[in-house]
Amino acid sequence: MASVPRRRPTIADVAALAGVSKGAVSRALNGGAGISAPTIARIQAAAAELDWVPNSAARAVSGAASQAVGLVLRRNPELLEADPFFPAFIAGVEQVLSAAGQSAVIRFVSEAGAEHDAYRRLFSERRVDGFLVTDLRHHDPRFEWLRALEAPAVVAGTPPRTCTLPSVGTGSADQVRELLRHLIDAGHRTIAHVSGPPSLRHARRRIDLWRQTLEEAGLEPGPLADGEFTSEGSVRATRELLEAPNRPTAIFYASDVMAIAGMSAIAEAGLSVPDDVAVAGFDGIALSNYVVPSLTTVHCDYQLMGRRATQMLLTLVRGEEVPHISTPVGAQLVVRRSTTRTP
Amino acid sequence: MASVPRRRPTIADVAALAGVSKGAVSRALNGGAGISAPTIARIQAAAAELDWVPNSAARAVSGAASQAVGLVLRRNPELLEADPFFPAFIAGVEQVLSAAGQSAVIRFVSEAGAEHDAYRRLFSERRVDGFLVTDLRHHDPRFEWLRALEAPAVVAGTPPRTCTLPSVGTGSADQVRELLRHLIDAGHRTIAHVSGPPSLRHARRRIDLWRQTLEEAGLEPGPLADGEFTSEGSVRATRELLEAPNRPTAIFYASDVMAIAGMSAIAEAGLSVPDDVAVAGFDGIALSNYVVPSLTTVHCDYQLMGRRATQMLLTLVRGEEVPHISTPVGAQLVVRRSTTRTP
Repeated sequence: MASVPRRRPTIADVAALAGVSKGAVSRALNGGAGISAPTIARIQAAAAELDWVPNSAARAVSGAASQAVGLVLRRNPELLEADPFFPAFIAGVEQVLSAAGQSAVIRFVSEAGAEHDAYRRLFSERRVDGFLVTDLRHHDPRFEWLRALEAPAVVAGTPPRTCTLPSVGTGSADQVRELLRHLIDAGHRTIAHVSGPPSLRHARRRIDLWRQTLEEAGLEPGPLADGEFTSEGSVRATRELLEAPNRPTAIFYASDVMAIAGMSAIAEAGLSVPDDVAVAGFDGIALSNYVVPSLTTVHCDYQLMGRRATQMLLTLVRGEEVPHISTPVGAQLVVRRSTTRTP
Repeated sequence: MASVPRRRPTIADVAALAGVSKGAVSRALNGGAGISAPTIARIQAAAAELDWVPNSAARAVSGAASQAVGLVLRRNPELLEADPFFPAFIAGVEQVLSAAGQSAVIRFVSEAGAEHDAYRRLFSERRVDGFLVTDLRHHDPRFEWLRALEAPAVVAGTPPRTCTLPSVGTGSADQVRELLRHLIDAGHRTIAHVSGPPSLRHARRRIDLWRQTLEEAGLEPGPLADGEFTSEGSVRATRELLEAPNRPTAIFYASDVMAIAGMSAIAEAGLSVPDDVAVAGFDGIALSNYVVPSLTTVHCDYQLMGRRATQMLLTLVRGEEVPHISTPVGAQLVVRRSTTRTP
């Protein structure tokens, strides 16, 4: 455009073109406090015409903070609905971000190419200062991607030993073992497991813990079925287990949602909980205490996990160090009526 | 720095300093496809040293799209855990954003000053192209703020007539009336309501619908108690109702989570559902079909609401028009055992 000066435009050029003071331009670009909407629009138009770069955008390439953390999720957004981890984790993340005046940038992707691209773009365009990594998978390529990007990142979960990123886990393995021993001590000899999809690292870990603990006690692991972390999947899996030749007297579900849905399938089969089939879940959702019979579960504080992971990430973003493996947030075995036989 | 040229740096300066082609700089700043991580790091260092502004940041002040939509939530992040609306709504939002290659920027704030500031900054710093507005309140100031900012915005919910922003609601009023008439037809004469906090517009609307429908049927509205949209609040409210002089024979809960928790309080009082007290919820969460007895509820498709609202917002951001009030997503009365007396 002919009207644009060839030298790099200054805030004074923008103020002159918009017919306002330099202070007004600055305030308009910093939230607009005390500036009317039409004036803000005039200043924005002047800035656009001159191609003027205010500090906030200049900072975006000079390396200053974006005041936002990224969460790239490669999963079907529909799974959010049935997932007790995500809302609680995000609540913890937002508690820390809110206090720091920062935002979460959430991006869903459907395949690995888009996933890699999302990490690179969000970071290289300085839309985020770093990432929280959740939903760990087997042979997860993200540890290497993030190392290569040199992006600050914190893993929420228990990554393999080869992962060089700092992490914070629930540390719930002891409580899962304790839960299974509680069932064994109550006399159960055929203990089944309704798992999540084994491609997810935490689903696989619960399968391994179930199998190991039973084998250590000299028991044959009972039947195993994939409940896909959904109510429908669990009903299907539970029916399958109840029709198996070695019908279980106890079922450990990898999530409370699956356990509650499973209890309805058990009732439908004319069996009672806990007298015919004892039932235990995992997660410790609020409703687990309010179903009838109340549900034995392992309670994990995903909110605390979200807070810890975010605090660690903001520390990394400030250029400070964090421990490679943070103290696990801790889990708690909660024994309720669904595994306590009436005497 | 002495090494920085005084004229505005160009992409050629960055390429020369990094020892790569101009094409490599461009690709590195646009996702980095085909560029090694060390090369990307070298290019980023060169860009930072020269204070070079690539197109993506220049666009941030010239008015092009941020490829992100904002969601500013003024509520305690802890409430996310018990809220069936948010995960489903976000799932719908992300389905549309994912297909469009865009992100959601989520910001939690604790009071009105921070809330107003968050809308202004996210928009004026071009971190988002527009906003989705949820959690409508009485005398909500956001309609006016967003109008003044001239920010594209879509309301998820049913705003007052004075709101000039386009909106998409559930349109569940008919189904709530139908649910209450179903209870009246079954012979109930004292129908109580456990509500959400009346400061929330949708909680207030359910209270009004409950009162109006009973009055239209010539019935005195039964006792009312605030269950705060939480399990604990509902147990407290339910105990209160069961001890009231006019003990209800049916309770309409403003959410399924409160209804499920309420059923456990009814069982604890030695009463049975539905024979002593019929119970109905609202939301239609997956678990409502899997509690025993299964829960009568009004199912709302919050995921569809998220998709619609986001599609409308992206249309507005492109500068096109949308209808002021979109067709409601629709709700469905689901009658199950919790309100069906055994004959």
